[in-house]
Amino acid sequence: MRTLAAYKAHLREIGKLGSALTLLQWDQRTYIPSRANEARAETIGKLAKMTFELTVADKLGRYIEKLEKDESLSPQDRASVRVVAKDYRRNKAIPPDLFERFAVARSRSESAWEKARADSDFAAFRPHLEEMVDYSRQFAEYYGYTESPYDALIEGFEPGMTSREIRGIIAPLREKLVPFVKRLQTEGTRPNDTFLKGHFPAAGQRALSMRALEAMGYDFSAGRLDTTVHPFTTAIGPSDVRVTTRFLEDNLLSGLYSSLHEGGHGLYDQGIPAELDWTGLDQGSSFGIHESQSRTWENMIGRSQAFWSFFRPILVQTFPELSSVTADALWRASNVAEPSLIRVEADEVTYNFHIMLRFELEDELITGKIAVADLPELWRDAMTRYLGVTPKDDASGVLQDVHWSAAYFGYFPSYMLGNLYGAQLFAKLEKDMTDLGERIRRGDLAPIREWMREKVHRFGRILGPKELLKEVTGEEPDSSYFLRYVMKKYGEVYRLR
Amino acid sequence: MRTLAAYKAHLREIGKLGSALTLLQWDQRTYIPSRANEARAETIGKLAKMTFELTVADKLGRYIEKLEKDESLSPQDRASVRVVAKDYRRNKAIPPDLFERFAVARSRSESAWEKARADSDFAAFRPHLEEMVDYSRQFAEYYGYTESPYDALIEGFEPGMTSREIRGIIAPLREKLVPFVKRLQTEGTRPNDTFLKGHFPAAGQRALSMRALEAMGYDFSAGRLDTTVHPFTTAIGPSDVRVTTRFLEDNLLSGLYSSLHEGGHGLYDQGIPAELDWTGLDQGSSFGIHESQSRTWENMIGRSQAFWSFFRPILVQTFPELSSVTADALWRASNVAEPSLIRVEADEVTYNFHIMLRFELEDELITGKIAVADLPELWRDAMTRYLGVTPKDDASGVLQDVHWSAAYFGYFPSYMLGNLYGAQLFAKLEKDMTDLGERIRRGDLAPIREWMREKVHRFGRILGPKELLKEVTGEEPDSSYFLRYVMKKYGEVYRLR
Repeated sequence: MRTLAAYKAHLREIGKLGSALTLLQWDQRTYIPSRANEARAETIGKLAKMTFELTVADKLGRYIEKLEKDESLSPQDRASVRVVAKDYRRNKAIPPDLFERFAVARSRSESAWEKARADSDFAAFRPHLEEMVDYSRQFAEYYGYTESPYDALIEGFEPGMTSREIRGIIAPLREKLVPFVKRLQTEGTRPNDTFLKGHFPAAGQRALSMRALEAMGYDFSAGRLDTTVHPFTTAIGPSDVRVTTRFLEDNLLSGLYSSLHEGGHGLYDQGIPAELDWTGLDQGSSFGIHESQSRTWENMIGRSQAFWSFFRPILVQTFPELSSVTADALWRASNVAEPSLIRVEADEVTYNFHIMLRFELEDELITGKIAVADLPELWRDAMTRYLGVTPKDDASGVLQDVHWSAAYFGYFPSYMLGNLYGAQLFAKLEKDMTDLGERIRRGDLAPIREWMREKVHRFGRILGPKELLKEVTGEEPDSSYFLRYVMKKYGEVYRLR
Repeated sequence: MRTLAAYKAHLREIGKLGSALTLLQWDQRTYIPSRANEARAETIGKLAKMTFELTVADKLGRYIEKLEKDESLSPQDRASVRVVAKDYRRNKAIPPDLFERFAVARSRSESAWEKARADSDFAAFRPHLEEMVDYSRQFAEYYGYTESPYDALIEGFEPGMTSREIRGIIAPLREKLVPFVKRLQTEGTRPNDTFLKGHFPAAGQRALSMRALEAMGYDFSAGRLDTTVHPFTTAIGPSDVRVTTRFLEDNLLSGLYSSLHEGGHGLYDQGIPAELDWTGLDQGSSFGIHESQSRTWENMIGRSQAFWSFFRPILVQTFPELSSVTADALWRASNVAEPSLIRVEADEVTYNFHIMLRFELEDELITGKIAVADLPELWRDAMTRYLGVTPKDDASGVLQDVHWSAAYFGYFPSYMLGNLYGAQLFAKLEKDMTDLGERIRRGDLAPIREWMREKVHRFGRILGPKELLKEVTGEEPDSSYFLRYVMKKYGEVYRLR
């Protein structure tokens, strides 16, 4: 029992340092004065190092070994030891000097990427990316895997998921969505969305976002909404989960949807019970499950007909110049599907192609089937094949995302899995809550938050993504829910017969 | 030379942890969600402990001892070692277990004070205050002193200053100001300030504060202005000095003066040269010198006739309903002197009495001439004697300030010394810059900032307060400058003959 107390105390220490670190990062992305960035980077480096040292402390290893043999632990403590042990061994697997060399190389790589993207100069970035792939492959060997080294990397974002499974999940998506996108373009009626452009002052947009977050049940006594360049959500500590958004004054809805998206992440983190604070369990189940929450609120709820019945009057109150725009028009305009080059600007239908492409390239890179030098051409080919658009330069092609420059291989699939998990969970929600549409139309969104809290949030990291999905829906990950949802909605929006 | 590098690296580590700690505290007082306070207190406690441990690390002691003997050090390094050694020995002087007991008692004392003030119940606070006095007296013995134990405490805020000196500085102040306040009340014409009351939305007030800070030369690329309940300035790290203010919508000028005050502190911290960053020298000379900067901008500049010539058009642009109010009327209205019970609401003339009273009580408390139990009555007596007003309860008397509950004995004198230093520096500035009034009238305030930077800011903590004053003015601290200034201005405002 003394060991358990010491173990918990150690996790609290990690939690407190992590909390300081997270605040430093939040501030860096919201309020920091421009000239303070240099010193801040040093301070963040210091705190990150200290936090990491605690997570690989030998004494933590000793606690874990003892506690793993302790049969008297409560189920929650057992879960804590399980996930903390897993992280501990993963962190310990990499020799410190290898990791240190990697950290230096990664920092160079990120800077090189930034410059290369600005110049659209893949050749300048290529040696860095090669290094990142090389380190990642070494890490995969240290982490260990059954079938593919890529799986060892995916494990860091989507525990229990393998590249083979993802391929299985993707196949029907690709098969159905490629022709569907073509049909939308050739047979569909593109919605009119001209009224989304104009001048919509940030203050009004902010008021709309606040209304939406309040309706969702986001708890402002344990959070805040701030603005930033690249919106994010961050859990700074117990009862402190902050969301950020950005308002483009020439775009009516981009800020609102960014807020709904981050609000979904925020509700998840706020919904994790206080008894999991600082136990290693106070996080989402996986990146994909986290993304399922943000996508559900942004797309399945926020881009539904029912939502616009509720939200149109609020919108018109803020921007009276839109009083002639109907809820139906708003719904349609917020669901335009269009093949495009940039992932972060993609709609619900085409988004998944951006991920498939990255997943397939990562898979082959890490397993050594292709070389970094081949990427630009393979990228162009895949874009043309999947979406019928071809980037004219690498800046809008292979250089567009930051992830690879930081060796985040295995991260991208979580974005797509988030869409799929979200649809699968939402189908269950619709079954459980027969008056769901009616509730949304009334703006009565709290029951949705409660359902998610009960089914998803309260487990924190106790259940892995596949266990969680099984627990809630009784099924394995299945892309058919998403397919049905997206083809039905876009079929209606585009008036397909 | 290896020792010097290790010493500097150690100070950088302290600096980085301190920077994280300061951001946690800034956030706690500006943006933290209400429910996050409990966990934040724990996180702050952890970082504070870690930072303190570094400041008393044995290896730092070894570096200091070696470097004190090193004759090859540059003047700046020598200054660094001098101030760091002083802090180190002071921190080390207190036995850790005594300090730990004190920290617990202080935390209880602060809570007890909060409740006691709300209930105006001195009896409930008395045992805690007795404990704080007792600890402070013990600390004074450990710190050491020549003449009075109170001096050992003053040293923590105003290095090199003694209670005997302060008494000498105060005597003429008291002698002149007691009759002067009476004269203002009996022979003076109180300015009309009714137009300061009304409804002045915070957004407009904020715009005014921003304009004022810009005019002062406060650097927004290395700082920010936020709002809070109790305004403060904080140096979070290199190129990150943030000021805060608060806007009372029923009061036209309180927010502006709060911004000018904090802006004065902010300019000081921003003016400390980058080469002093994280060397122990990157702070103000003393609490009193810091206060001299804030008071100069708030009162000597911000409450001058010249300032209102400059600022009236800006004010009227923001609040056109004031277009009939003249610069002269604004100047007079911002200089109302009135005996009152609460220190933080006091004007320039009466403020010093609030400090004298506290100084005299602290002096006698720490030297054992009076007991804590006597304080309420002694307080009432002194208020009546100095200002002719008598608190009807202890909440507006002896319980009004937080300082004693946290054992900050020796802090109050710095507030008054700040006024005196400020006037003494300002007299020198007026001599050096013969067109000062004309410049202020034009809103050309940058040269004032430059003068202060050159004469005061650039030394950081290299010079102590008395050395600094001597360096700039050639004189010892002298209250006659303040007396001349304040009696001249208020004599004019109140139209004394």
